[in-house]
Parts: sequence; structure tokens; C-alpha cells
Amino acid sequence: MAKLWEKSQGKRADLQAAVNRYIVNDLAADNILLPFDVEASIAHAQMLSEVGLLDTESAQKIITQLRRIPELHAQGKFVIRQENEDVHTEIENFLVQELGDIGKRVHAGRSRNDQVLVAMRLYVRHELQQTKKLLLATADAALQFASQFEFVPMPGFSHMQHAMPSSVGQWAGAVVESLLDDCRVLDSAIALINQNPLGSAAGFGTALPIQRERTTELLRFDRVQVNSLYCQNSRGKFDAFTIAAMLQVMLTLGKFANDLVVFTSKEFSFFKIHPELTTGSSIMPQKRNLDIMEVLRANVSMVQALQLQAQSAGMNLISGYNKDLQNGKEAVMKTFSITQESLRISALVLQNLEPDEQGLARAFEDKEIFATDFVNELVLKGAAFRDAYKQVGSNLGALSKVDPVQNIKSKTHLGATGNLALDGYRKSINELNATMK
Amino acid sequence: MAKLWEKSQGKRADLQAAVNRYIVNDLAADNILLPFDVEASIAHAQMLSEVGLLDTESAQKIITQLRRIPELHAQGKFVIRQENEDVHTEIENFLVQELGDIGKRVHAGRSRNDQVLVAMRLYVRHELQQTKKLLLATADAALQFASQFEFVPMPGFSHMQHAMPSSVGQWAGAVVESLLDDCRVLDSAIALINQNPLGSAAGFGTALPIQRERTTELLRFDRVQVNSLYCQNSRGKFDAFTIAAMLQVMLTLGKFANDLVVFTSKEFSFFKIHPELTTGSSIMPQKRNLDIMEVLRANVSMVQALQLQAQSAGMNLISGYNKDLQNGKEAVMKTFSITQESLRISALVLQNLEPDEQGLARAFEDKEIFATDFVNELVLKGAAFRDAYKQVGSNLGALSKVDPVQNIKSKTHLGATGNLALDGYRKSINELNATMK
Amino acid sequence: MAKLWEKSQGKRADLQAAVNRYIVNDLAADNILLPFDVEASIAHAQMLSEVGLLDTESAQKIITQLRRIPELHAQGKFVIRQENEDVHTEIENFLVQELGDIGKRVHAGRSRNDQVLVAMRLYVRHELQQTKKLLLATADAALQFASQFEFVPMPGFSHMQHAMPSSVGQWAGAVVESLLDDCRVLDSAIALINQNPLGSAAGFGTALPIQRERTTELLRFDRVQVNSLYCQNSRGKFDAFTIAAMLQVMLTLGKFANDLVVFTSKEFSFFKIHPELTTGSSIMPQKRNLDIMEVLRANVSMVQALQLQAQSAGMNLISGYNKDLQNGKEAVMKTFSITQESLRISALVLQNLEPDEQGLARAFEDKEIFATDFVNELVLKGAAFRDAYKQVGSNLGALSKVDPVQNIKSKTHLGATGNLALDGYRKSINELNATMK
Amino acid sequence: MAKLWEKSQGKRADLQAAVNRYIVNDLAADNILLPFDVEASIAHAQMLSEVGLLDTESAQKIITQLRRIPELHAQGKFVIRQENEDVHTEIENFLVQELGDIGKRVHAGRSRNDQVLVAMRLYVRHELQQTKKLLLATADAALQFASQFEFVPMPGFSHMQHAMPSSVGQWAGAVVESLLDDCRVLDSAIALINQNPLGSAAGFGTALPIQRERTTELLRFDRVQVNSLYCQNSRGKFDAFTIAAMLQVMLTLGKFANDLVVFTSKEFSFFKIHPELTTGSSIMPQKRNLDIMEVLRANVSMVQALQLQAQSAGMNLISGYNKDLQNGKEAVMKTFSITQESLRISALVLQNLEPDEQGLARAFEDKEIFATDFVNELVLKGAAFRDAYKQVGSNLGALSKVDPVQNIKSKTHLGATGNLALDGYRKSINELNATMK
Repeated sequence: MAKLWEKSQGKRADLQAAVNRYIVNDLAADNILLPFDVEASIAHAQMLSEVGLLDTESAQKIITQLRRIPELHAQGKFVIRQENEDVHTEIENFLVQELGDIGKRVHAGRSRNDQVLVAMRLYVRHELQQTKKLLLATADAALQFASQFEFVPMPGFSHMQHAMPSSVGQWAGAVVESLLDDCRVLDSAIALINQNPLGSAAGFGTALPIQRERTTELLRFDRVQVNSLYCQNSRGKFDAFTIAAMLQVMLTLGKFANDLVVFTSKEFSFFKIHPELTTGSSIMPQKRNLDIMEVLRANVSMVQALQLQAQSAGMNLISGYNKDLQNGKEAVMKTFSITQESLRISALVLQNLEPDEQGLARAFEDKEIFATDFVNELVLKGAAFRDAYKQVGSNLGALSKVDPVQNIKSKTHLGATGNLALDGYRKSINELNATMK
Repeated sequence: MAKLWEKSQGKRADLQAAVNRYIVNDLAADNILLPFDVEASIAHAQMLSEVGLLDTESAQKIITQLRRIPELHAQGKFVIRQENEDVHTEIENFLVQELGDIGKRVHAGRSRNDQVLVAMRLYVRHELQQTKKLLLATADAALQFASQFEFVPMPGFSHMQHAMPSSVGQWAGAVVESLLDDCRVLDSAIALINQNPLGSAAGFGTALPIQRERTTELLRFDRVQVNSLYCQNSRGKFDAFTIAAMLQVMLTLGKFANDLVVFTSKEFSFFKIHPELTTGSSIMPQKRNLDIMEVLRANVSMVQALQLQAQSAGMNLISGYNKDLQNGKEAVMKTFSITQESLRISALVLQNLEPDEQGLARAFEDKEIFATDFVNELVLKGAAFRDAYKQVGSNLGALSKVDPVQNIKSKTHLGATGNLALDGYRKSINELNATMK
Repeated sequence: MAKLWEKSQGKRADLQAAVNRYIVNDLAADNILLPFDVEASIAHAQMLSEVGLLDTESAQKIITQLRRIPELHAQGKFVIRQENEDVHTEIENFLVQELGDIGKRVHAGRSRNDQVLVAMRLYVRHELQQTKKLLLATADAALQFASQFEFVPMPGFSHMQHAMPSSVGQWAGAVVESLLDDCRVLDSAIALINQNPLGSAAGFGTALPIQRERTTELLRFDRVQVNSLYCQNSRGKFDAFTIAAMLQVMLTLGKFANDLVVFTSKEFSFFKIHPELTTGSSIMPQKRNLDIMEVLRANVSMVQALQLQAQSAGMNLISGYNKDLQNGKEAVMKTFSITQESLRISALVLQNLEPDEQGLARAFEDKEIFATDFVNELVLKGAAFRDAYKQVGSNLGALSKVDPVQNIKSKTHLGATGNLALDGYRKSINELNATMK
Repeated sequence: MAKLWEKSQGKRADLQAAVNRYIVNDLAADNILLPFDVEASIAHAQMLSEVGLLDTESAQKIITQLRRIPELHAQGKFVIRQENEDVHTEIENFLVQELGDIGKRVHAGRSRNDQVLVAMRLYVRHELQQTKKLLLATADAALQFASQFEFVPMPGFSHMQHAMPSSVGQWAGAVVESLLDDCRVLDSAIALINQNPLGSAAGFGTALPIQRERTTELLRFDRVQVNSLYCQNSRGKFDAFTIAAMLQVMLTLGKFANDLVVFTSKEFSFFKIHPELTTGSSIMPQKRNLDIMEVLRANVSMVQALQLQAQSAGMNLISGYNKDLQNGKEAVMKTFSITQESLRISALVLQNLEPDEQGLARAFEDKEIFATDFVNELVLKGAAFRDAYKQVGSNLGALSKVDPVQNIKSKTHLGATGNLALDGYRKSINELNATMK
């Protein structure tokens, strides 16, 4: 069977081949979308029969055939072929092949455009939820790490210079809280995209009396995306926002990764990692490199680039569908893949990481890191802050010895090293996990 | 008075000048932050006195002086001077000047870093709300336009080719619904950033017994941003997300603007705009250009670039404050300015725009735009969709005449031209306006 | 055979698997680099034997084996396996397998890092030259099109409004001249990257007495890239500049593509294209879409995103190799593939395109497009420009009829419609082609 | 005097004000362009008189008045006023004011569009040359630093781990060679943009018999940019390439800056910098921060963002001028300012920097950094490389003591620590300086 719109006049096989070669739909993407197109097609057929656009028996046959597809696909017996252009055409052709004329009825009241839209919407919703699950697992690993080493002193930095005493617990706790905020951002992305575009057809609706409220219900969307034209116009925007949400996760992990690359350098030696998580060199026999964290760091830039790809694909185009938007599909899919893998590897790193107590202790040999605490001591005794600051600043050499553990425990306001409130994170993780079922 | 950290040894005025010249804080930004820093400083002083770190009388004096600043600033009597580096230092110096030693006490338990953080947080919250107000006014203008011309036929496009009949109502309705979704995104940005970083000091808390829950309450934040280090680490991320949210608004407006540039070209002639909203040419006496919509279109790219600026400023930096992050401040401020001005100009355009009925009518002279409707007619009579598609496709020349108005009114499912559900938008706008007070 | 740096202690297969999964080198990229690594390895072995670091007989054996690899690879008998990590290791292992101990000698005086560098350098040089060839073919097609329709009138636009009369020749001539400038930019990229990094080892040279001048000669590089550390540091920069050069080509093609999408819309109807270069719709039987030009347009954004990926991968990293840089490799390769395909499709479009004379004629029905020419007539008669401008501007309705062909022929300064100097482009193309041999 | 294209019908002051407010030309940019517009206007007037479009006396008067402008401007007596829109109109109005009707003749045969183009072209050419000068001065400072500390041992890093011995000379030499390559890239940008767009008018030439070859000569351009439409179309592309060239410089400086931030951290302590080049903290009295290098680092991202701004401003726009392009002007100007300031501050840093010999010595206490050198010793004694690698790798604990200075001097191939060929850089700098006169 051939493409739906082919015409017979004046074939020029060379031109067709060149066109196909250039606009080639990414079949990998279509294979990923397959189960979601099937799900949407079933809802569409069900609705068509309910409003009388398809007799009940035909609808049942169509639905039965549609339900076979995911398994056939998994078994390699349902294959999307380049000559059929995309998953949507392949499915329609399959129905015609299995059911004859009945199969030709399923496309009533919809367009490939809204099929892509609804399948992408279901896919993105699913992947955002998957990302949430992985994120909570990584947050859990970071929380366990923070709890285990809550009171191990670690220098706090600003401008990459020693600032004030901090702790391994505070460092890892920052990762947990960052991930929990990211989780809320993922929820806002789900809230935005969880609306039903099916029935918008090519962007201008259809004269057939379809019921968009019904497919909305069947597909468990929060609401109908009402304006048919907006369904098309929102495509690039939703891609962009989805990636922006994922980028928040990547920014959290990227900082974690960069910290580890720096903190496991010989000069810092703040952490030790399981050697099997490192790689070696072809000429330097002594090298152990933390490649995975470098790759993660670079993957933040990659997602940033994919965000640009998705955003720019839709720029300066008039309302309605333009082919340019297909570049957003690849960008979104790659983003999910990168982010989810990055969450997995980060959890693994956290489970195979430990503080290098010797290295951390060495960092406290220089007493200047306690200077601000001496200022605050004077403040507590009644000095004005700025006077105390100047007094300590002029006598840095005379600072007395301080026990780092006592120091970090002594700071007890909410969020300070002595009061990290890790229990609150545990509670949040549990609550968020509960919402996932 | 001089900068707080200056040292006296080995002055090299040339080096200092070069440093100042290069790292120069943007005083424009600091002038914008001034009222927010004052607000946060008042809350801080109030809390200090409540926990006993500042006697009540001193606190009262400090607060009284702080309250004078915004007005003095408005009158040009309080000026941030380059030699005092930033608004935060200028305010502290003002307090010392007015109150002597008492003024030196206000900086206890906080750092310039968390002052910047909290002032930016208050500022961003305020500007996101301002943006919401302007957005709702623009949505209102688009809704009025959509209502007024609800049933004026207009071609619907895909791939920039005539696709199916659409309407001015549907085109403008898409703008309204897009803006309403953007409004929800702004709310999610507010929800993310509305947490209190004050008290995180330089990122590692303070040994002083401050009460962060109290400043949270005084500054009407939703909650404490707990982990002190995360307060710093979140800075670049929050900047990025804020701009991502604003970019959603700009993407909506950018499509509107590009549509208008195309649709007011001589070839399209779909819309007429008040001539005073256009500009002319230095050599071509006949020209009337829609510069404002071209500039708006380019401003979408500008915000995209600012997003990159804010995102990349924080990349591959270790945990804790790094000076690089200051580039995010400018990016956020410019984004607010551009987006708010773009909302204003869009509303003005909508109020001075009308369909060019002659141009629109000409677009329907070609009957092929109704082809899909003929297919659907056959479907309603019982034909299989794909058969009907082929039948119409082979007889495009024989399509009968159609009345465009009747055609667009005949499509009645939710979101189609005959059922745009504009009332729903009215309701949403009212509800959202109500939440703004 | 296994990876070079593997250690035996404390195997944790799960960790290794996770690391491999995450950092996985793109074997597609390595397959592309294979012939270039072979070429460089031959030069390296030759040099080693000349300086006495390898006996002549061993060198000969190694070179003989290396020469077999490309053909074995083409036949599927030399396969890069994931467990051997990359093409460089696979080649060394092959030599050891075929030659025993002799094979172990080839890696003396070099590192995988400079192998990647030199192979990439040879690859990029080759692809830049391929791109030049394709570019000149596309410029040739545009020039033929410009010559054929040199004096077909076409409106000139600014701000998407009618500005002054232009011609199909001028429009297509702009494409030719733009491509010729791009060709010079490609040459500057070749000049930048055509320097030899081989011998820089891991970035710090080697104690072995290698002769980098000799491999430079053997590999036909312009010069040695001297500083070993700079060889590593330049990697991200050269990737960025290579893509910036290719982006110039894409910007030329993107404008051409966007013009065609707009100019083949029903409203413009300036050009007709062979229908086999268009695609259809699943529900609208009348649609013919210029998908290829939309995809090309989106591919400009894609290359822009790849540029960002390559640039950002190297940001804020200390001197020396960092794994992050591998993301640049993929970006460069994709850019070449996209740009070369885009050049091919553009040439094909130009060969199957013709002006729609009816549509173009309609565009001149409105005489206002000649307004500036009336101004200039008055200037030629002695009027001051600004006075003439005002006079014509107030009498736009009274402009007399003008013959468009005569009009465009009457403008004869260099680069105007009557003097496009197309012969100069022909000469440039021939000259540039001659340099390619 | 008012804008050139103003019309009198139906004034709506509110609309005009809103338009002005939104599209506001950046007068700062216009003030920068002023001398270049004057230069181009003089050449234009000269040419007009030579071809007889302006009598010699009038031309002389116009040129005399034009020559006064830069000085008047410097004295604040020539001011570009918002109500006159831009520098080009202000100059024309000035001529009319001073010369009456004669002043109205200068705009014959050109348009504001090509005035902007030619002024920008002259400006960019000038700034690229200025940048070259500053770049060579910075390269000189780096070369002096490299020479002074040529044989001070410093660890070489890959993956941020100790790799092999390197030297301060090699580190600084890499900066020099990188800058010299950047200088060649600047030259290629000059070669690209140094072509004359004047006479392209609004993109479609003029009916007047102007001589573009003559203004090309007068303005010392390499050649005419022939096709009038291409003159407009190249605008965004040339902006993009100019910034891409400057970004190469920034990438060099950004790596230098990031290295210094890391290498001056307490953990590394490889370098000491004059304290007056550092800044302090508001609460931590001991802090000395290298803010300038952090800001420089962030400025690389800023230029990257400006590049995106310039590139995207021209995307998906039809041929001919579109207002969107004005955003490129600001991007280019900011890029020049940032890059030139960054070169200046880098030179200053290099002049006030010295190795911290104690810190560097400590880095060589761990002998593993010499492991590869032991491998190579075995290779020189006849061992196969891979066998030697394994032998050393299994005996890392038994490595004997090495003198770092002897070690780095012993590597003598071109570009290794013992043969940095710094004289070659000196020669290149002198040659390049000579070309600048």
C-alpha cells in the first residue's frame, strides 16, 4: 500500500526519492509513539460509534484489531515501513488490510495532525510521570547519603574560595531539595499539557458531529484543549515548556556532577567513588577518570541545545501546522532519554560514594574559614556587626582553634548545618511517591 | 564611605579602577531592586529584634530610616553611587550615617548574597504578577476582537497553503486560549520562586539564632527555602525558569505578530490596521510598515537569547555563589521589560485592527479550500472516509459553490468555528482577574 | 580483547554496565572516523620508523595491516565492538591480533586523545571540501536559474510590503552571491583547522623523540599545531567555528527555503514547483505542501542548536581534555550531514522550479511599487530628492502606467536589476571549482 | 523637523507614542555609528558630484558640513534626538538646516537601509581591527609570562585529574597560540565583511546612474557587494559571523579565566594574583575573590547569547529588509565592547600574576604523574608500548623519584614542555602588528 496523498500524474521517481530522503520521518520516534497512537485511536473509534459515525460492530472490530498492534509490534510482526511514511498511516493501512472497507472509516473526524498531537500528548504525560518516579528515587538516594554523613564537616565555598564551614549533609541536602522543587516543576508541565487536542483535525475542526468531551474522558485528560487552531499553535510551545521543565532537573544534576568532578580531583580529595564507576587512559596507567559525571555535565548543554531546537523550530511561522515543528518531536524524546538516564546514573553514584575524611579534614587546617563565626561571636556579645567584621578581619592570624563538627552542629536555625530538617524531605518524598500510586 | 571589604595595603589605584570598570554592577538593576531590598531589610530588622539580636529601640530606628529610603530615592535624594558598589551597601552606609553605631547592627545574621536573593525573589514575584495583569488585559482585547468578528470567514492554513475554512473568531480565540495557558505557567513560576532564601547568609547559614520562619511570614512567602546552600544553588535555575515562563507568553505574542505581518501584506490583505501604528520609508513614499510587529517578533528571539544568558551563566560552576550568576539578573529584568511592553503593544494593536473583508472574501474564491468538507459530507452519507477522500481528490474541479459563513457556522463540535466557546474564556479571565484582587 | 585500562580488582559488573550505558561512545561516529584514523596511524608508524622508534620491518608490517582495514570494514569484516570502546582501540587490538608484539608498538608517542584529534581534523577537512563541492553545484543551479529568468519582473519587498520592482534574476542572483561568500567562509574554516595536532599525546607531549613536522608533511597539513596543550584546548573552539561556517551556508539556504514557502503560497503564487517535490495531506485532498523547504528551514535551527551543543560542551572547563568535549563530535557530524543534504535538495528544487508569470504579473497591477522610480525621475530632472519624495507621496493615486520589464532593465548601476553581472559569478564558480580539482 | 515619512491624516498621538516607545531605536548605537555615517555620506556626495547627480559646488558644501559633524557631536552640539528617529535622519536634517535645498539632495541614489548597512560595515571593520590590536597586546602579555616562567613545573590535567607533567610556560603558551589563531579568524571576518553595500538602496538599487565602484574606492572596501538584494540579505549573516569570530576570542579568554579561578583556589594554589585585582565579602572578613575572572567567564555565555540574538533575529524572514534585523546591531556592538574589555582585563591579570611555587611543588609530591614517562623509558629501551604500560600500571607504588624541572626539559619534540618554540610566537605577533601599521 502506498502513501495516502500520492497522485499518478507525471511520476518522477528521482524527485520522490530525494524528497523522501530529505524529509524522512524519524521512524524511531514513530515506534515510540505507537502504543499512544493505538490508545488514542481506540478512544476515537469508541467515540465515533457512540455518536453514530461508525456502527457498533465496525467499531468493535477496529478496536479489537488496534489492541493487537502493540503485541505484534513487540514481536516484530508489525513494522513501520519507510514507504508508508509514519506510524499513523501504517496503522490505518493495517486496519484496511485486516478489515477491508471498515478500516477506511477510522479516519473520519480526525487528521494525522491531531493524531500526532494526541499521541505526543499521551507520550509526554507518560514520560513526565516516569521522570518523576526516577527523580524521587534519586532524591531518596541523595537523602540517604545526606543522612548518613549529616555531620561530616566540609568547606563551604563562594567564588570557589573557602567561605564558611559546611557539611556533607548540607551539600547532599541541597541536591534533595533541588530535586523536590524540580518535581513540582514537572507537575506544572503535566498540568499544562494534560489537555485533549484530539478532534482539532487539521487545526480547523471538522463538520462531523464528533464529541471531544468524550475522548477527553476516555483518555483521562484534565480537559479539552478547546480552540482547534490553538491545538496546532501550542505544539512548539508545549515542546519548549516540557524541555524547560526537564532542564530544571538537568541543572540540578549538572551541578551535582560538576561538584563531584572537582571534589574528586587530587587537589580537593573530598570524596571517594567506587573505582568501577571510573574509566582509565590509553597511555597514562595511573589515571581514574570520572567520565560519567563529565558526560552528565555535557548533557546539560545537550538538553539546552535541544530546547533551542524545539523553540526555534516554531519561530516566525504563521498559525496552523508547519512541517518545521517535527524537529521538536526528536528534541523532546532525546531530552526524556537523557534526563532519565542521568537520574539513574546519579542515583548509582550516590550509592557508591563516600566522603574522603582525610581530604575533608585537611581542608579545615586553615582557620580562616571560621572567621565569620568569630565575627558572630562578637555580635552575640553585643558588638555591632560591622565593627566585629573589621576587628576579626585585621586579626586573621590570631584566630583560635575550632572543632569543625561542633561548629557545624552549633548553627541551628532552619536550613543551617545543625538543623537541616532532613525529615521534611523524607515526608515530601513519601507524599509525592503516594501521588504516583 | 567606602566598600566594606577594602584593605589598605599596597593600593594600586589603576588595578582597582580596572576591576571596577570590568565587574561594574549594573546600577540600573540596583535601582530597580531598591524597594525590595528595603522591604526585606525591614523584615530582617523586625525579626532580629524579636529574637533579641537587636534591641527594640534600635530596630525601630532602623525601620524608620529604611522606610524613608524609597521616597528619598524617588526624589533623587538617595542615590546609589558606583563607589559604594551596590544598593545593599548604599543602604547600610545610609543607616550608619543616620544612626551611627546602630546602623552597623543591621547586617547581623545575613549576607549580601542572601540580600540579593531575597530582593530578587520579591522583585520577580511582583513582576510576574504585573505580567499576569497585563496578560489578562491583552487576553481581554483579543477576546473582544474574537467576539466582534466571530463569524467572519478566514482561510485556515497548514504548510502556508489553504487548508480548510476558518474564521477571524477562531484565529483570535487561539490567541486568547494561548494567553490563558500562559497565565497558568506564570502561576507555576510564582509557586516555584515564592519561597524565602533570607537567612541563608553566604550559603551556609549563620551561628546567630535567627528565625527564618518569621521573615517568611513578614514577607508573605509561601514557605522557607530550607537548605542554605540550595538557596544559592537555585539562583540560576530560578532565573532560567522565570524566563522560560515569560518565553511562553512571548511565543504566543510572536505568532500573533508574525501572523499580522504576513496577513497585512498586499498579497494577503486579511487585516487593516490604524495607519498611526505603522511607519514609513525614507525613499519609498508609498510604504506603510508594521514595524511594531516585526520588533515584537524579534523580541521573542531576544528573550530566547536572554534565557540562554541566564542558563549558561550558572553552568559548570561548583555549589555556592559564583559571581557569574549576576548576568542572570540583567537577563531577568530585560525579559520582564520586553514581555510587558509586548503585551501592551499587542493589546493596542488588537484595539486598532479590523478584518479586510474584501481581501478575506477573495481568499474564498477558490473552492478547493472546501474539499475536506465535501469529503465529510460523503462520510455522513455513509461512505468510508478514505474512499470519499479519493473521490473528492479526483474531482477537485467539480466542487460546487459554498457559502463561507454558513460553512464555518455548520461546524459545531467544541472548538470548531461554529462553537468557539468564547464565553468560557470570559469566565476564565474574570476568575483569574479576581485572584489578583 | 578488552579495554586498555581495565583493572581486575573488585569487579562490579552492574556498575561497569551502567557506566558503559551512560558514556557510550557513538559507534556511528567511530565508523565514520575509521579511514581517517587509519590514514593518521600510517603516518605515525612511518614517522616512528624514520626516527628509529620502530624498526623498518615492523613499521612496514603495521602499515600493511592498517591499509587492509578500510576494505575489511567496507566488507563488514572489521567491526567496531562496543566492548572495545572505540575505533582507536579496535584498530590497535586488530594489529596485536594480526602481528602479535609488533602491534603493541604502534601506540608509542601518541595518545587516544591526539588520535581522536587528528582523525577529526582530517575528517573535518575532508567534509569541508565536500561541502564546497556541493555548494558550488548549488550555486551553479541558482546561477542557471538566474540567467534563464534574469528579466522576469518580481516585486521587491521590505517589511514584507511591496517596496520597489525587482526581478527573478536579482532574487536568484542573491542566492548565488551569498553562496560564493559562504564558500570563502568555508575556506577560512579549512585554513583554521588544517594544522596537525598529532604528537600532542594527552596534551603534554611525550618524552619520545617523535617528529611532528614529518607527520604534518605526510598528512598534508599546512602546519604543526605547536603547543601540545593548545591542541587539546582548541578542540571545542574548532568544532564551534566549523559549525559557525556551515551555519553561514544554512542561513543562505534557509532564506531561500522560506522565500519559496511564502512565494508558492496561493496568495503570492510567484513560483511553480514540480508536484513530485511536494507532499499531500491525509484529510485534505487538494493539498500540495512544500515540506522539503519547511524541513530545510527547520534544519537551520537544528544547526544553530548543534552549534550551541558544541560551544557549550567546552564551557567552564579547565585546560586539557575533558570528556564533555565528545558531544562536539556528534554535533559536527550532524551539521555536515544536514548541510550537505540541504545543498543537494536546494539544487534539485532550483532545477524543478519556474516563475508563475501570471502571479508575478498580478503583483505589478498596483502602481505604487513604482513610486520611488517616479521620485528618481524628478531628481534626474533637477528636483531635490526630499522635495520629489514629498511630491510623489502626496499623489500616489496619479502615478502613470509603467512597463515592469523596461523598468527593471533601466536600472544599470552594478548590482541593480539591469546589471546583475551574472558573468562574474560564473567566473568565480569556475575559479573555485578549479581549486578543488 | 520631523520624521521623513510622517503623514498628516488622522493623527493619533497616543498610538504614535506607543509605537515610538516600542520600536525605539537605540540612540546609543546611533551615536556610535555617527562618524561612520559621516564618512560614507561624504563618499556618497563625492560620487554623486562626479557622476553629475550633484553639482560640484553643492557637493563641496555638503561635504564641508558633514565634516563638521563629528566635532560638533563630540562637543555635544550635535545631538541625535528621539523625535528624529535615527542618526541618518538627524544628519540629513542638519544639512537641510545648514544648506537649505542643497541638503535635500544628498539622499539621492541611496536609502536609509543602505546607509545603515554601510555605516555598520565601516564600524565593524574598524572594531575588528581594534580588537586585533588589543588581542596582540594580550598575546604579548601572555608570551612574556610564558617566557618568564617557561620552565616552572605545573601538573597537566585531563578529566581534572593529574595526567602528566606540564609547565607554566606550556599553559601560558597555549593562550598565546590560541589568540594567534583567533587573530586569523578576525582576519577572515574582515575579509568577509569588507565589501561595499552602498548603492543597494532599499535592496533593489536605484534608477539613478550612481557609481558603486567609486564609493568602494573612496571607502577603501575590497570590492563591491554586487547584488543589491544580497546586500540586505547578508545583514543578519554578517552579524552572526562577526560575533562567531569574536566568540573564538572569548572562548580563549574564558578558558584562561576559568583556569585562574580554579588554580587560585586554596586547594590548587598554583598562582598568586595582586590583591587589588580581587574583591572581598560583606560578611566573611578573610575572603579575596577573583570576581573579574568569574565575570569574564560569564561574559563568554553573554556573547554566546548575543550570537543567538543576532542569528535568530533574521530567521524565517523573506528576502529584503525586515525590521527584526535591528536587534543584530545591538548584539554586535555589545559583543565588541565585552570582548575588547575582556582582552584588556586579561592583559592586566597576566601582568600581575605569578606562579605560587610552593603550591606547584606540592602538586608533584605524588609520583604517579610521572607514570607515563616511566612507560616511555621502557619503550626507549625496547619494550612494546602496551607491555610497558601494563608493567608500570601494576607497580605504581614503586615509581622512583623524579626531578620535575629536568623532566619537563627532557621532552624536546615541537610543542612539548622542553621545546615550546616561544620565539615563533614572538615572530607572529610582530608580523601581525606590522600589518596593522
